[in-house]
Amino acid sequence: MSNHTYSISEIVGTSTEGVDDAVRNGIAKASQTLRNLDWFEVKEVRGHLEDGKVADWQVTIKIGFRLEDH
Amino acid sequence: MSNHTYSISEIVGTSTEGVDDAVRNGIAKASQTLRNLDWFEVKEVRGHLEDGKVADWQVTIKIGFRLEDH
Amino acid sequence: MSNHTYSISEIVGTSTEGVDDAVRNGIAKASQTLRNLDWFEVKEVRGHLEDGKVADWQVTIKIGFRLEDH
Amino acid sequence: MSNHTYSISEIVGTSTEGVDDAVRNGIAKASQTLRNLDWFEVKEVRGHLEDGKVADWQVTIKIGFRLEDH
Amino acid sequence: MSNHTYSISEIVGTSTEGVDDAVRNGIAKASQTLRNLDWFEVKEVRGHLEDGKVADWQVTIKIGFRLEDH
Amino acid sequence: MSNHTYSISEIVGTSTEGVDDAVRNGIAKASQTLRNLDWFEVKEVRGHLEDGKVADWQVTIKIGFRLEDH
Amino acid sequence: MSNHTYSISEIVGTSTEGVDDAVRNGIAKASQTLRNLDWFEVKEVRGHLEDGKVADWQVTIKIGFRLEDH
Amino acid sequence: MSNHTYSISEIVGTSTEGVDDAVRNGIAKASQTLRNLDWFEVKEVRGHLEDGKVADWQVTIKIGFRLEDH
Amino acid sequence: MSNHTYSISEIVGTSTEGVDDAVRNGIAKASQTLRNLDWFEVKEVRGHLEDGKVADWQVTIKIGFRLEDH
Amino acid sequence: MSNHTYSISEIVGTSTEGVDDAVRNGIAKASQTLRNLDWFEVKEVRGHLEDGKVADWQVTIKIGFRLEDH
Amino acid sequence: MSNHTYSISEIVGTSTEGVDDAVRNGIAKASQTLRNLDWFEVKEVRGHLEDGKVADWQVTIKIGFRLEDH
Amino acid sequence: MSNHTYSISEIVGTSTEGVDDAVRNGIAKASQTLRNLDWFEVKEVRGHLEDGKVADWQVTIKIGFRLEDH
Repeated sequence: MSNHTYSISEIVGTSTEGVDDAVRNGIAKASQTLRNLDWFEVKEVRGHLEDGKVADWQVTIKIGFRLEDH
Repeated sequence: MSNHTYSISEIVGTSTEGVDDAVRNGIAKASQTLRNLDWFEVKEVRGHLEDGKVADWQVTIKIGFRLEDH
Repeated sequence: MSNHTYSISEIVGTSTEGVDDAVRNGIAKASQTLRNLDWFEVKEVRGHLEDGKVADWQVTIKIGFRLEDH
Repeated sequence: MSNHTYSISEIVGTSTEGVDDAVRNGIAKASQTLRNLDWFEVKEVRGHLEDGKVADWQVTIKIGFRLEDH
Repeated sequence: MSNHTYSISEIVGTSTEGVDDAVRNGIAKASQTLRNLDWFEVKEVRGHLEDGKVADWQVTIKIGFRLEDH
Repeated sequence: MSNHTYSISEIVGTSTEGVDDAVRNGIAKASQTLRNLDWFEVKEVRGHLEDGKVADWQVTIKIGFRLEDH
Repeated sequence: MSNHTYSISEIVGTSTEGVDDAVRNGIAKASQTLRNLDWFEVKEVRGHLEDGKVADWQVTIKIGFRLEDH
Repeated sequence: MSNHTYSISEIVGTSTEGVDDAVRNGIAKASQTLRNLDWFEVKEVRGHLEDGKVADWQVTIKIGFRLEDH
Repeated sequence: MSNHTYSISEIVGTSTEGVDDAVRNGIAKASQTLRNLDWFEVKEVRGHLEDGKVADWQVTIKIGFRLEDH
Repeated sequence: MSNHTYSISEIVGTSTEGVDDAVRNGIAKASQTLRNLDWFEVKEVRGHLEDGKVADWQVTIKIGFRLEDH
Repeated sequence: MSNHTYSISEIVGTSTEGVDDAVRNGIAKASQTLRNLDWFEVKEVRGHLEDGKVADWQVTIKIGFRLEDH
Repeated sequence: MSNHTYSISEIVGTSTEGVDDAVRNGIAKASQTLRNLDWFEVKEVRGHLEDGKVADWQVTIKIGFRLEDH
């Protein structure tokens, strides 16, 4: 039985809606190119302001995914 | 007049909905066994991913509650 | 062409609804007195508890705004 | 010979006098319910302000105490 | 009913006496120009040394104050 | 289906052998009184020195355990 | 003899040249509106990239200045 | 003579044995796909618990490797 | 309209000249393989010493780049 | 005119009285062997507990002192 | 009765074996020149990689030792 | 074959020119009394302001040097 190894990617998901939606958007994008996504962690929440309002939410997350065993 | 003392518990609330809901779920659970809940702080936001989507949100919070005066 | 300078203000927005709403409330208030708001960062999420429930969400944010060129 | 294990509790001691007194108040309260208190660490110093003065000091401390061997 | 917003100012209070006194001096000064002071947090304790003794204590604090509702 | 809630306890495991053994000792002790232990995190590694040698290893860990659903 | 109090402002100075120049630009701007500038600390170094090159350097600094005694 | 550039990958190595073994397992896996591995740093030590015992150790490491010069 | 997602790469640029030059060297190298570079952040400044002098500067930076929309 | 260089020593001052006194005791001891002491910073406040009371305060400080020009 | 003062030295112990051994090697070396060693704390674990394997472990530790009373 | 041990010294180099020069000045001074200097890390960048301009740059660095084998 082998021990699994995981790789961690850092991405920034964005949304005009809020924190939860930005996380979901970032993960949806990451899942287009990475397989075996296993967990995420929120590292930073920022955003742009325009006309005195939140124009977009930018949530930096780390995504852990299991590397395939060869 | 006595000075109050507060105790701090660390818990992880979870939700399939998002950050706010995970906090509320954790506090609802904590309020079943702790009295005089006074404040909370979010320490960490993580979650599990399944099929390239967020399966649950896990929000670590610290909860402060006032100790009874004896 | 001049280099811009930005100033950073730290505020706490509050809400009975959740994190996103507290951020928006804080920024709406800040935009009453500050111009050229450019970005924000969430620094801390806390709140008061009453009767074992979240009474309000308090989100500390830093707001960056561009200083006018004189 | 057994290896000892310690548990760590986090509390907030308060005082109208200052930092040292808030620590002592918190530890006095903790010693009513915990035995074998061994060490403490100050994690945070905050307080309430009223009428432009410090109304109380709130000092968050971690307290380590030795668990009984069974 | 409106949600309150708080602003946070960072100051350094000083004293020849010690930590508590430096905090009180800083807050006394801040209360000359800011209204509705609500809480403080100690961020850093430093000081100058002269002739191998503490010449002054410099305590960096953040002060939260409620913004007036317009 | 209910959302699980987890509680986090902070303990210090000790050993004369090394880091891994101190973690295992701390968890063995915790499992005498806590059920449903789920994960741990190492927060700090320290130790006492005697006669210029490591006398014991002290490893602070956080232990997460699932709260029973009532 | 009074104890001095200092206030801390956080700004972002920018430059197309590099870190040192961005600090100097930010301080030059701050000195237009603040008096008695006393010290600075660099908190963060970031920048925009365009066409695979650094388009500008953004250095966040805290500036301490002595408040006038009244 | 060119200046070298290094890239940093973040992975999680696992083991049923302990910290050192989890690091070695993670690096063995990484060396299957990355060349010129140069250094590593341990960022986090966690693990799963089952039946009140450590089921596996999960050690997050950053691995630095030299990019080839083209 | 789609929300953008950004990926973050961590690299170490080096230089015999200084901090600014090491950043520029690292970004020049990264731009050979990554497109749509958008921002960078300096995370760490280190270096090797030889004969009591700085032999090279090693600046760890995070680089954010926009992922292509598919 | 030469640029000064400072060295930083880390010490732990102790006291049965409180934080301020532990700092002063540590500095008094350091001034027996170091010259040109210039500033200090408090890094950590801990202490031993005996019989449910603070037995001693242990304050870790960094002390900066100017190196002599040769 | 005098209050003790402790000094803290920071060293890097190395080993080809693992974390525990690197700590022990560093302390063995430190004990050749320092007396009254009292405690240590692990601050960082790094290492060199060669041929895709750990060539050495480098563990940064702080060592506290009691200063002699004069 | 022995394992090397390194010691770490913390110093503050200063300059009227900028960050890089302050680092070089500090290392030049350190190399007058320490041998086998191996690496440095920048920990903090601060400075004094006079007349609204940077009067000097103060860069805190840690310097690692190999201890001689006896």
